[in-house]
Amino acid sequence: MAASATAPPALRFSLKPSIDSSVSRSETCDPFPRCRNRDLVSLRSSSVSHGLSRFNRVSSPVLKFDGIRSKVMASSVPAVDKSPLKKSSRLSTIVDVDLGDRSYPIYIGSGLLEEPDLLQRHVHGKRVLVVTNTTIAPLYLDKVINALTCGNSNISVESVILPDGEKYKNMDTLMKVFDKAIESRFDRRSTFVALGGGVIGDMCGFAAAAFLRGVNFIQIPTTVMAQVDSSVGGKTGINHPLGKNLIGAFYQPQCVLIDTDTLNTLPDRELASGFAEVVKYGLIRDAEFFQWQEKNMQALLARDPSALAYAIKRSCENKAEVVSLDEKESGLRATLNLGHTFGHAIETGFGYGQWLHGEAVAAGTAMAVDMSYRLGWIDESIVKRVYNILQQAKLPIAPPEVMTVEMFKSYMAVDKKVADGLLRLILLKGPLGNCVFTGDYDRNSLDKTLRAFCES
Amino acid sequence: MAASATAPPALRFSLKPSIDSSVSRSETCDPFPRCRNRDLVSLRSSSVSHGLSRFNRVSSPVLKFDGIRSKVMASSVPAVDKSPLKKSSRLSTIVDVDLGDRSYPIYIGSGLLEEPDLLQRHVHGKRVLVVTNTTIAPLYLDKVINALTCGNSNISVESVILPDGEKYKNMDTLMKVFDKAIESRFDRRSTFVALGGGVIGDMCGFAAAAFLRGVNFIQIPTTVMAQVDSSVGGKTGINHPLGKNLIGAFYQPQCVLIDTDTLNTLPDRELASGFAEVVKYGLIRDAEFFQWQEKNMQALLARDPSALAYAIKRSCENKAEVVSLDEKESGLRATLNLGHTFGHAIETGFGYGQWLHGEAVAAGTAMAVDMSYRLGWIDESIVKRVYNILQQAKLPIAPPEVMTVEMFKSYMAVDKKVADGLLRLILLKGPLGNCVFTGDYDRNSLDKTLRAFCES
Repeated sequence: MAASATAPPALRFSLKPSIDSSVSRSETCDPFPRCRNRDLVSLRSSSVSHGLSRFNRVSSPVLKFDGIRSKVMASSVPAVDKSPLKKSSRLSTIVDVDLGDRSYPIYIGSGLLEEPDLLQRHVHGKRVLVVTNTTIAPLYLDKVINALTCGNSNISVESVILPDGEKYKNMDTLMKVFDKAIESRFDRRSTFVALGGGVIGDMCGFAAAAFLRGVNFIQIPTTVMAQVDSSVGGKTGINHPLGKNLIGAFYQPQCVLIDTDTLNTLPDRELASGFAEVVKYGLIRDAEFFQWQEKNMQALLARDPSALAYAIKRSCENKAEVVSLDEKESGLRATLNLGHTFGHAIETGFGYGQWLHGEAVAAGTAMAVDMSYRLGWIDESIVKRVYNILQQAKLPIAPPEVMTVEMFKSYMAVDKKVADGLLRLILLKGPLGNCVFTGDYDRNSLDKTLRAFCES
Repeated sequence: MAASATAPPALRFSLKPSIDSSVSRSETCDPFPRCRNRDLVSLRSSSVSHGLSRFNRVSSPVLKFDGIRSKVMASSVPAVDKSPLKKSSRLSTIVDVDLGDRSYPIYIGSGLLEEPDLLQRHVHGKRVLVVTNTTIAPLYLDKVINALTCGNSNISVESVILPDGEKYKNMDTLMKVFDKAIESRFDRRSTFVALGGGVIGDMCGFAAAAFLRGVNFIQIPTTVMAQVDSSVGGKTGINHPLGKNLIGAFYQPQCVLIDTDTLNTLPDRELASGFAEVVKYGLIRDAEFFQWQEKNMQALLARDPSALAYAIKRSCENKAEVVSLDEKESGLRATLNLGHTFGHAIETGFGYGQWLHGEAVAAGTAMAVDMSYRLGWIDESIVKRVYNILQQAKLPIAPPEVMTVEMFKSYMAVDKKVADGLLRLILLKGPLGNCVFTGDYDRNSLDKTLRAFCES
C-alpha cells in the first residue's frame, strides 16, 4: 500500500526541532526477524526513574492448549484461572490487571469471538446492551451477538449504533446510550458491551459507570489503539468542546476481549495510530520492547499476526502493571501520557477527528522528546531513534501547521495534569526507557520547543 | 400557620386504602416535651429483619466545648478528631460516616457557617466552585464564600447559580457546572461545594465525580431533606425524562456541614417534606425514634431548634450506619428507599417539581404500609400510626388524582431496584421498626394497593 494512501491530512513532516532528525526511513528498516516462541515470552524489567520499586516478576506458568496456546500472567500475583477453558480453546494469552476486587482479565488471541464461553462467563444478569458504531456494526455486531447468546437462550441483547468518530464523543451521543438503556428498561443487573475503538470504549464505559450509578461492563476493542491503551485501566469519559476527556469516571470492566482477527478490517492509518502508544511503552519503561519494535515495525505494519499479538500483549502487560500500581493516577500512571499533553492540544486546536489520537500523540511525543533533549535530560541518539521509529510507523513528528504557540499554551492550560496552576509534563530522562512526571522544569525549554514546532 | 398555606397542590387526602385511617390530627398531637440532654443522647438499637447483625454500639466520648457543645460518634468505630476545634467553636455534634478511606464527618449545629476553620480544613487545592441556585444564592452564597476565604487569601472561589427545582436536575443543567469549571480552568486539585437542597447536592456531587474523573467535594445542605437524607451516603446523579436519578455515581464528599440556622429561611412545605424521610428512619429501623417523633412532631413543625437538631442528628446516625454497612446498595441500603418506589412513580408521572420529593415519599410510604398490611406482615395499629404522623406533618397519604394503576406499573418497572425483571420493594414486616427488601411477595397485594389508591 502506498504511503500516501494512509497519510493523515495536512501532515507536516518538515521539521524545525532542535536536532537533526532527517533520518530516512530506509536507514532503520530492518528485515523482519520472525517473532519466535511467542507463547513462551517472559517479561523482563526495564528501569524507571519514578521512584517506585518495580514488581518482582514471577515466572509465569505456561499452560498448553492444543500444543500451541499458552497463558502468560502479567500481574504481580499469579492469577488462578477459576474456570479453565476447554482443550479446544483458541485462547492465546491472558493478561491480568491486578486491582484487588476490581481485577479483570484481558484475553488476547485469534478467533476469540468464536468462543461463546469466554464472553458469557462475564455477563451479569440476562440483558446485554452492545454499544458500537456505524463502521463496526456491519462487520462484527452479528458475530458478537452470536457469541453472547449462542447456547444461552436466557440472554437478550439490544444494541445501539452510534456515529463513528472522535467528534461524536460528547454528551449528546452519550445520551443516546442512556436513552436506549432506559427505553429498553435495563436494570442494575445488566451488562454493557463496548464493541469498537477507543471512542466507543470510553463512551460505553462512562455510560456503564453512570447508568443507575454503575452496571457491568465488557470491552471488545477492535483497533490497535483501543487494544493496547484505552481498553486497559478503566479510564472512561467524553470530550468537552474545550478539552478532551474532561468528563468521565474511573470504571473497570469485567473483562477485555481482544480478538486480533478484528484488526484485519482496520484501515492502515488507524493501525499506525495505535503504534504511537506501543512506541510510548518502550520509551517510558521498557527499553527492550522499544528495541524489538525498531526491528519489527515493518512486520507490524504488514499485520504479521505473531508480531501484532506480541506487541499487543507486551503493551497490555506494561499498562496493566502501571495501572495496578496507580489506578487513580496519583503519579506513576501519568507517565502513560507521554506526548499526550501536547497531543491533546493538537486534537483540541485542530478539531477532534482531523487527526487520529495516535497521530497527535506521535507529534506530541516528538515534542516531549525534543524538550527533554533541550533540558539536557537525554542523549541526542534517543531523539533520533524516536523520530525514526515514528516515521517508520508512518506517523507525524510535528504538529499540523495550524497550531500556534499560543494555541498550545491555551489548550495545555486546561490539561488534567495541571495542579494548582502548574503544568506537569511527562519527559524522558536518563537512558532509554526512563521518564519523569514533573512540573519542575525550565520554562524556557518548553517555550523553545513550542517555537521550534510552530510557525508562529 | 394555616395548613392551607403549606399544603401541596392537588393533595388528595381522601383515602381508599384497606383500613380505617381516619385518625384525626388532634388525637396524637402530644404536648411537646423539650428534648433534654440532647448532647448526651446515646444510640439504642431497634431490631431489623434484613438478616445483617446490628453494630455493637459503642458508648461515645462526650467532648465538651464551652460547657455546651458535645460530640457524639455514630460510626461503629469511635472516630478520633484529628484536629480538635478551638474552645470557641460553636460546633454541636459530629456524625462520622465510616467508609474506610472514603469516611467523612457530618458537622451538625447552629452557626457553623461562621466557623471558617471547619470548611477550610476540607478544601483541597486553591480553587473552589460553589454550586448553588437562584433561591439560595441571595441568602447564603456570600456567607459561604466568606467562610471559605476568611483568613486564607490563597483560596479563590467561583460560583455557578443554577435555576431552582427538581425539573432542572437534568443533563443540560449539569453541563452548566462543567462549562463553568472548564471555562474557569479548574484542575484536579479543585473543590466543588454544593450549597442548597437535594437537587443541588445530587447535581454538584455528580459533577464532582465526573469532572476530570473526580475532584474534591463538600456538601452544605440547606433543607431538612438534604440534611437528613441526600447529603449522607454519596448517591449523586440527575434525572432522565423517563425516571429519577437514573444517571449518576456513588461519590462521597470530604465533609457535610449542616448549619441548622439555614432552616430559618426554609418554606414550611419544604420543611414538612424533609420530615417524610425522618419518619422513614423510625419505621425501617428505629422504633424509639418513631415514638419520639410522635411526641415531637409539633415541635419540629414549629422549628424548635433543639428538636430539629436532634431529629437531624438521629436521622444522619441511622443513615450513616446503613451506608457504612452497605455503601453500594447491595441489599440493606435499599431499605432506605421505603416509600420511594411508589414515590418515584408519582414524581415521574405527575411531572418533576409538582410535588416535593418528601411529599411523594410520604404518599409512597402510605402505599407501602398499606401493602404490608394487606400481606399480613404488620398490625393495623402500625398503619394507623403511620398515617397519623404523616398527617400531623402535613404530608399527603395518597397519590395525586392523576396517577393511575397503569402509570404506577409503568414507572415502577424502570426503578433501579428491579433486578432481572423482578420488582423488589421495601415493606414493613413485624413489630414497628422492622422492614424487608424483597421481591418475594404476593402480586395481588400490590395490585390491590394500587387499585385502592388510584381512581382508575
